[in-house]
Amino acid sequence: MNSLRITVWGENVHEHKSAKVKAVYPDGMHTVIAAGLRRLLPEAAVTTATLQEPEHGLTAERLRETDVLTWWGHMAHHDVADEVVKRVHARVLEGMGLLVLHSAHHSKIFRSLMGTTASLSWRDEGERERIWVCNPGHPIAQGIDRQFVIEKEEMYGEPFAVPPPEEQVFISWFEGGEVFRSGCCWRRGNGSIFYFRPGHELFPTYYDPNIQRVLANAAEWARPRGTWVESCPNVKVPLERVASA
Amino acid sequence: MNSLRITVWGENVHEHKSAKVKAVYPDGMHTVIAAGLRRLLPEAAVTTATLQEPEHGLTAERLRETDVLTWWGHMAHHDVADEVVKRVHARVLEGMGLLVLHSAHHSKIFRSLMGTTASLSWRDEGERERIWVCNPGHPIAQGIDRQFVIEKEEMYGEPFAVPPPEEQVFISWFEGGEVFRSGCCWRRGNGSIFYFRPGHELFPTYYDPNIQRVLANAAEWARPRGTWVESCPNVKVPLERVASA
Amino acid sequence: MNSLRITVWGENVHEHKSAKVKAVYPDGMHTVIAAGLRRLLPEAAVTTATLQEPEHGLTAERLRETDVLTWWGHMAHHDVADEVVKRVHARVLEGMGLLVLHSAHHSKIFRSLMGTTASLSWRDEGERERIWVCNPGHPIAQGIDRQFVIEKEEMYGEPFAVPPPEEQVFISWFEGGEVFRSGCCWRRGNGSIFYFRPGHELFPTYYDPNIQRVLANAAEWARPRGTWVESCPNVKVPLERVASA
Amino acid sequence: MNSLRITVWGENVHEHKSAKVKAVYPDGMHTVIAAGLRRLLPEAAVTTATLQEPEHGLTAERLRETDVLTWWGHMAHHDVADEVVKRVHARVLEGMGLLVLHSAHHSKIFRSLMGTTASLSWRDEGERERIWVCNPGHPIAQGIDRQFVIEKEEMYGEPFAVPPPEEQVFISWFEGGEVFRSGCCWRRGNGSIFYFRPGHELFPTYYDPNIQRVLANAAEWARPRGTWVESCPNVKVPLERVASA
Repeated sequence: MNSLRITVWGENVHEHKSAKVKAVYPDGMHTVIAAGLRRLLPEAAVTTATLQEPEHGLTAERLRETDVLTWWGHMAHHDVADEVVKRVHARVLEGMGLLVLHSAHHSKIFRSLMGTTASLSWRDEGERERIWVCNPGHPIAQGIDRQFVIEKEEMYGEPFAVPPPEEQVFISWFEGGEVFRSGCCWRRGNGSIFYFRPGHELFPTYYDPNIQRVLANAAEWARPRGTWVESCPNVKVPLERVASA
Repeated sequence: MNSLRITVWGENVHEHKSAKVKAVYPDGMHTVIAAGLRRLLPEAAVTTATLQEPEHGLTAERLRETDVLTWWGHMAHHDVADEVVKRVHARVLEGMGLLVLHSAHHSKIFRSLMGTTASLSWRDEGERERIWVCNPGHPIAQGIDRQFVIEKEEMYGEPFAVPPPEEQVFISWFEGGEVFRSGCCWRRGNGSIFYFRPGHELFPTYYDPNIQRVLANAAEWARPRGTWVESCPNVKVPLERVASA
Repeated sequence: MNSLRITVWGENVHEHKSAKVKAVYPDGMHTVIAAGLRRLLPEAAVTTATLQEPEHGLTAERLRETDVLTWWGHMAHHDVADEVVKRVHARVLEGMGLLVLHSAHHSKIFRSLMGTTASLSWRDEGERERIWVCNPGHPIAQGIDRQFVIEKEEMYGEPFAVPPPEEQVFISWFEGGEVFRSGCCWRRGNGSIFYFRPGHELFPTYYDPNIQRVLANAAEWARPRGTWVESCPNVKVPLERVASA
Repeated sequence: MNSLRITVWGENVHEHKSAKVKAVYPDGMHTVIAAGLRRLLPEAAVTTATLQEPEHGLTAERLRETDVLTWWGHMAHHDVADEVVKRVHARVLEGMGLLVLHSAHHSKIFRSLMGTTASLSWRDEGERERIWVCNPGHPIAQGIDRQFVIEKEEMYGEPFAVPPPEEQVFISWFEGGEVFRSGCCWRRGNGSIFYFRPGHELFPTYYDPNIQRVLANAAEWARPRGTWVESCPNVKVPLERVASA
């Protein structure tokens, strides 16, 4: 197979506004996410893009050369230009994979692909999360034990307002009593979409080897599967002529 | 059960621009659709609303009092105010049923609920359509034979760019050689969505007893199933205190 | 709507072999399940049947007069006659609803409908279970708060080897660190199937008002939706004659 | 990726009982299916097995060394030993891909994986079939035009009694007026299952380059995605100790 071209997109705002976040991710969360992917997928071409770049770093050309896009955003969802969201959306339908990370559940791109609010319950106290594998045979779960622990994470709880996942890969248990569908797969058009819950900006989640393994597996899983440039053609000439029986 | 409150929404533009369409539907397509529903669901409260009314006839209050909304649109999709689309979308997630008719596959409301383009192939020659039942036990297919014919209809052909239907009720055969997934069910949030293909403005499709039966069945099927006012709450107090094993 | 005819099927073995179980369910688990349904669905006709009766109480006639069947079994799965399983299976495809309770995940009827093993992890220590609602608008979750607690239950943990649920209604959190997809919906043929996890024989789970509410809601949800007597007909006469374009 | 190990299973009965079938497939249908796969997947290891071999050629060892199994059967479904069916079923859940061909819709293995009858309507007159692509981006549709024609085939018509396909790849149009969901994907356990309609024994369907392309694509798509040896473990030691909040 061809080597995978992955673009890691980062909102890159918390890291500059909060000293605590900067202490955890001095060069931005996106650089840590990218480093993990590079480590586990040495043949992939992994680059980054951020909100602050022109067109958020997501020009038409850049997207055309992206096989899989990862998306982390939170406080600046509304600063993402609608035009860029439409462009990403179209590219997903065309075949680009999309990994939606943590608070990006409320991003414009995820909500527009799901057609729902993607709302959930939450508590930001830093509590233990156990991430359980629902389908050990799923490609995204390969190399992961039956469960793994993140010692401190933000809690997300059900109900999670999304369409029924086409495959459920992970469900999380939280110390405080909640559960959450943490790893969910959908296909839209020709694109593969994976939502993965962990990744609060205050915690070193993206340094965790299990988290990195899941993201690398998911990038491979989301690899474009074929080509389809959509249209709505008027096919004027019938293929058949029928005479009633 | 309570009596069903159905609002039949009509774009109501072709009927005023085309003498041919006016000849078929002199009082608008929406009045014929509404009449069919009234005939088959005598206990339902069926009203109509059109694009031309203030807020397209779909105020917040009106939507709150609507259990099931039917939507026919075509040439004026872009004249529907985004604010109204958002309001309808939110109400579907809250529980209102939505019947999406024919060319409304490209309506803003359907595309935003599906997260896809809902594109398809088409040919406007007036050809025979056979509508086959895929699941004779489905509530929307009750009272329908194993198939029925519309003698002259616009053709819609695959590929139909929608998420995998959660239930496939009908598939159409066309004289000219095409096929189409004509009756598809999805749930989004708490709302039930049914797409039904036939209904070109040039043909008397909505007078057909089988078509009317399907719409009446679908309205009953799309009845709100429960209540859920969505939010994204911060649940500050944990339910449990855990000490590591 | 017509009044619902519910048959509560009980394996009825533990109750006679274990003094502990008999202490909790002196007249059998099925009588308590039936009593809860009668209380909440006063218009339903609720009867019971057990393994020990001729044909396990599930004659063709009895099934024909059953709209919804509930199934609890555990240690005697293999004593259920294959012929009866086939009969129940056929009746589900025809339209009868089926509520699969707790250890019946490994019953012949559930496995044959799912096409998978329905295996899971488990621990029988009596621990706290929190049952979370994933879709508060779902009919089976009506009248249930965002979550409820069973103080002592057997633990079931992921992975749960079933096809992707068509709707996810509940997910459980367990004191010992596990999670489980506790309330799952599928349609097979014309029948509606709901799996509901709680209900270990050593605990008074079926006396719990929330549990009883879920079962009553599920029985209403699983009501037959239409009729379809399946066959595989040779349709000798073509409907159309086609001459190539 | 590793080279794919494909076992082509043939019932191999019609070919010996009918001169007409023998004329089309002198060395059996399985040899032609295998030849097509070898041509298009030169790195794959393609072998055949038939009903008449000991254990139908499907010993535990043979299955362990099979990545994807194709299954054609018709008049001898009931001669397939239940024990072999169970073995194949378990191997699919473990991860082996399964391509179910034409009349194998009624095979024991397909019915037991689906949990439904897989019944359909049919007519054996040799009529034109147009196979439409529903999702041009799907890996199984790569290299296929928007539709292709088989000039003479048996007709299969809806309703097709299967669970909702997780992905719909093809739908067929028939000269005589019927439609059918001809290419359907499901996952069960860790195994990928593809049903593909064409392939009546009286017609040279398996020599057709489009048919061969679909089968080769499907074999690649059905490649095992991961490993999971299922069990139902008693996990005695809790991971957590909880003290109520």
